Amino acid sequence: MAIKVAIAGYGNVGRAAALAVKKNEDMELTALLTRRDPASLKLEPELEGQVRCYRLEDAAALADSVDVCILCSGSATDLPVMGPQLARIFHTVDSFDTHAKIPEYFDAVDQAAKESGHLSLISCGWDPGMFSLARLYGEAILPAGENVTFWGKGVSQGHSDAIRRIPGVKRAIQYTVPVEKAVEAVRAGEHPHLTAGDRHTRECYVVAEAGADTVSIERQIKTMPNYFADYHTTVHFIDESTFLAEHTKMPHGGFVIRTGETASGDQSLIEYRLQLQSNPDFTGSILAAFARAVVRMANRGSRGACSVFDIPPALLSLKTPEQLRAELL
Amino acid sequence: MAIKVAIAGYGNVGRAAALAVKKNEDMELTALLTRRDPASLKLEPELEGQVRCYRLEDAAALADSVDVCILCSGSATDLPVMGPQLARIFHTVDSFDTHAKIPEYFDAVDQAAKESGHLSLISCGWDPGMFSLARLYGEAILPAGENVTFWGKGVSQGHSDAIRRIPGVKRAIQYTVPVEKAVEAVRAGEHPHLTAGDRHTRECYVVAEAGADTVSIERQIKTMPNYFADYHTTVHFIDESTFLAEHTKMPHGGFVIRTGETASGDQSLIEYRLQLQSNPDFTGSILAAFARAVVRMANRGSRGACSVFDIPPALLSLKTPEQLRAELL
Repeated sequence: MAIKVAIAGYGNVGRAAALAVKKNEDMELTALLTRRDPASLKLEPELEGQVRCYRLEDAAALADSVDVCILCSGSATDLPVMGPQLARIFHTVDSFDTHAKIPEYFDAVDQAAKESGHLSLISCGWDPGMFSLARLYGEAILPAGENVTFWGKGVSQGHSDAIRRIPGVKRAIQYTVPVEKAVEAVRAGEHPHLTAGDRHTRECYVVAEAGADTVSIERQIKTMPNYFADYHTTVHFIDESTFLAEHTKMPHGGFVIRTGETASGDQSLIEYRLQLQSNPDFTGSILAAFARAVVRMANRGSRGACSVFDIPPALLSLKTPEQLRAELL
Repeated sequence: MAIKVAIAGYGNVGRAAALAVKKNEDMELTALLTRRDPASLKLEPELEGQVRCYRLEDAAALADSVDVCILCSGSATDLPVMGPQLARIFHTVDSFDTHAKIPEYFDAVDQAAKESGHLSLISCGWDPGMFSLARLYGEAILPAGENVTFWGKGVSQGHSDAIRRIPGVKRAIQYTVPVEKAVEAVRAGEHPHLTAGDRHTRECYVVAEAGADTVSIERQIKTMPNYFADYHTTVHFIDESTFLAEHTKMPHGGFVIRTGETASGDQSLIEYRLQLQSNPDFTGSILAAFARAVVRMANRGSRGACSVFDIPPALLSLKTPEQLRAELL
């Protein structure tokens, strides 16, 4: 019996998750939930006529026909409301990625899921998510050591948005780039004390409105607190056709490095690296794989909120335990 | 209450596991089990007077004073006997690494552990072990893709032993080296069809006995079936002092690369890489961390044999679930 999957939120990640579900032979895409008018959703050709679309407020009516709901809305304002709300109706998985607010979000989802008898996996993308797993495994194996995470080269949606809010900016994109010297020092096990600003530079490509004051725009970007002020930031003004030709993709990636000593003092390095042509597509693929694990854990009786740290890896795979041991162990 | 750990087998990995246990603050090294005369064991200075040594045949007497036993004997002939035998007495963890015989070994240990009410984690090193996890996570997230594993640069104990069995060879060491062009092709997502011999070369350093026929030794190495015949192999004859100065360490490492397409056709690359000054030390560190998880799973009622695929990652860590979510997620 196929796993019946609903997807709530049909932006970049939702679309990617929907396509990933279609590619997993044990899953069936049952419903798309949206806050927009369902009739207005423009589906990918592969999904056309394959899935029904519903208003988010009608979710409860789907409770019995859905095994797991993948939440693909934004972390800033949407998930803090939708996460607990949908955890009362379905088993859920989401990629909530505001690191500082994870404990608070976990508690809210945990309460909703426990009260209603559901299992909810939170913060399951690549960071938080796969990078978190790399940090945990690395720390457990080499307790005398250090984790360092580098992001990029890739597009930061949040930083791109921040630039677009500056008056006179028509289009903008921001690439986060690891500082090569910092990467080398960390890989060499030197344990340098590096802030995020020491480890990354920020490259901005901006299309200005006709007649806009580019000097002022550049100054506003470079002095923006939290986003840019603490980083070496470069701003390139380009024309719109160059922007559309070269800067509309969403590549990303990065790496988690654990360096440390074994008990006898020898050095070890563990590195987990991702290089992604499309950040949302990869996140959608992760969500689909973990949705399978959530259904299996829920069927075994797990309830409440959990994270990737709680999922036995075997539950992600279509293969039987015997196949996994024979083919992948 | 500290986790009471016994270690069976005091070779390179056993010594490393013992030191790793001492470095984990929630663990206590309770016993060393050996087939030799316990009085003859030369302990590391850090362990001197800190741990009692017992004959392997007295293991049963320790059943009540040990929470988990780490098995550090060889996979070729020792573990197939000791694995099931000790699984009848203790919860166990081992690094059985004969890939082709894992299913058979699993069944034997599973039966012994289930009949006696124990939990036994098998094949828990870096390959099989951490590399297996990388292969599983990669395959689950990118089902349309391919796993390729490269080993090295590092010392293969089995290949070094094979050279040492040739008459006229006094000392020998063999390094497995990844072929750079093959690595590049795999990282580029080209999915080339590569045998292990296409992906690796073998570099041998040999000290010949005085008067030995080096031409014959070199030919015997290069034509040895399974070990060398299918690989590009180079043989360097060196003097003993050079050997002792430069070739007595056991570095190793390697990487697992998953390349694949997300559902919309974009390329993703996942790479898990290890670079180890000491192969046995790192294996010992892994065994210690997973011993913690085994005790916790056993306390929750798990019985029988299992693999790294069955272990929820959180159980490896000293940190509470709250700390893990706040600090590592």
